Amino acid sequence: MSVLAEFSMTPLDKGESVSKYVARSLEIIADSGVPYKLGPMGTCLEGEWDAVLGVITKCYQRMSADCNRISVSIRIDARQGREGRLTGKIRKVQDTLGRELNT
Amino acid sequence: MSVLAEFSMTPLDKGESVSKYVARSLEIIADSGVPYKLGPMGTCLEGEWDAVLGVITKCYQRMSADCNRISVSIRIDARQGREGRLTGKIRKVQDTLGRELNT
Amino acid sequence: MSVLAEFSMTPLDKGESVSKYVARSLEIIADSGVPYKLGPMGTCLEGEWDAVLGVITKCYQRMSADCNRISVSIRIDARQGREGRLTGKIRKVQDTLGRELNT
Amino acid sequence: MSVLAEFSMTPLDKGESVSKYVARSLEIIADSGVPYKLGPMGTCLEGEWDAVLGVITKCYQRMSADCNRISVSIRIDARQGREGRLTGKIRKVQDTLGRELNT
Repeated sequence: MSVLAEFSMTPLDKGESVSKYVARSLEIIADSGVPYKLGPMGTCLEGEWDAVLGVITKCYQRMSADCNRISVSIRIDARQGREGRLTGKIRKVQDTLGRELNT
Repeated sequence: MSVLAEFSMTPLDKGESVSKYVARSLEIIADSGVPYKLGPMGTCLEGEWDAVLGVITKCYQRMSADCNRISVSIRIDARQGREGRLTGKIRKVQDTLGRELNT
Repeated sequence: MSVLAEFSMTPLDKGESVSKYVARSLEIIADSGVPYKLGPMGTCLEGEWDAVLGVITKCYQRMSADCNRISVSIRIDARQGREGRLTGKIRKVQDTLGRELNT
Repeated sequence: MSVLAEFSMTPLDKGESVSKYVARSLEIIADSGVPYKLGPMGTCLEGEWDAVLGVITKCYQRMSADCNRISVSIRIDARQGREGRLTGKIRKVQDTLGRELNT
């Protein structure tokens, strides 16, 4: 079963600007080897449950080392026998609609 | 660091009524020993990251055994040095407001 | 169509302790007349789409008056011909399981 | 105050394949004039609260016309004095990291 996960992780005790902490997570993600796609509100990961949750756990371990309060949101769409959905779902919607969309 | 997590897990290929599958997850949760609280839109768990994510992973393994498409939502509030927030956060809001609320 | 919504709204520019701001939202909710239930990670509201989103919009207007950055999470389960789900869904799961759960 | 919202809306009573319904929402979004960006797990919208929530409400009205059960997830990051975050947040993270990421 292949998992598509969108997640976002934010410290709540570092004031309004948190891009330093977000960048650190992205470094962990980009080095993990798990396919990903960065978006405006979070990052999508694709893979097996354990691989995807493993990357998110690493980001949490890093952030909890120097942050006192952390907010995490994870949304998962798991589907049997489907891979390549990081790009496939976007293409499918455009094909169904017969129209180019902003991506 | 103590984690408060709200999560919901739903099969998308079993039609409109999914309480049978939700009940199976609740059985896993109730037997896990991890403190929890069932709500109308999901279940809250409290504990260390690994314990909480471990229970959610067990629910996923059980559901993915006979469901082809699964939707999962997890929201986490992790905080250093705070426990008992499964009941404490609700009480705190009522104390701040000086007023009983529907819980 | 009746809407069951779980939502949470948090300022990101007020440091680690935000219960003062959460309490203000709860006051708006409790005075709205829309059925609600406060939980550890958010508040559930039940009603028509416009009534429920109207209450959330009021909370946002109040919070945006003195907060510079706000995080909002809303999850909705809308269902034709079903009401009373603020308490009904919890009861249903317990009945299906034939077992009392922590609520 | 400018709102960046990620949302996803799915019928739960139409089986495993729902791209027809998702495509209909995207048509409403693309024709709304509100800046948006389609991702693998949802669509990001940017604008004032009322404009953004107005588009989501239109999508809901259309979907509730022929679906009996609908699941909606909305995550919002509202920030004073910041616009262009649909592309700006992604660029910021890459600049902070000094590295190109998958987007």
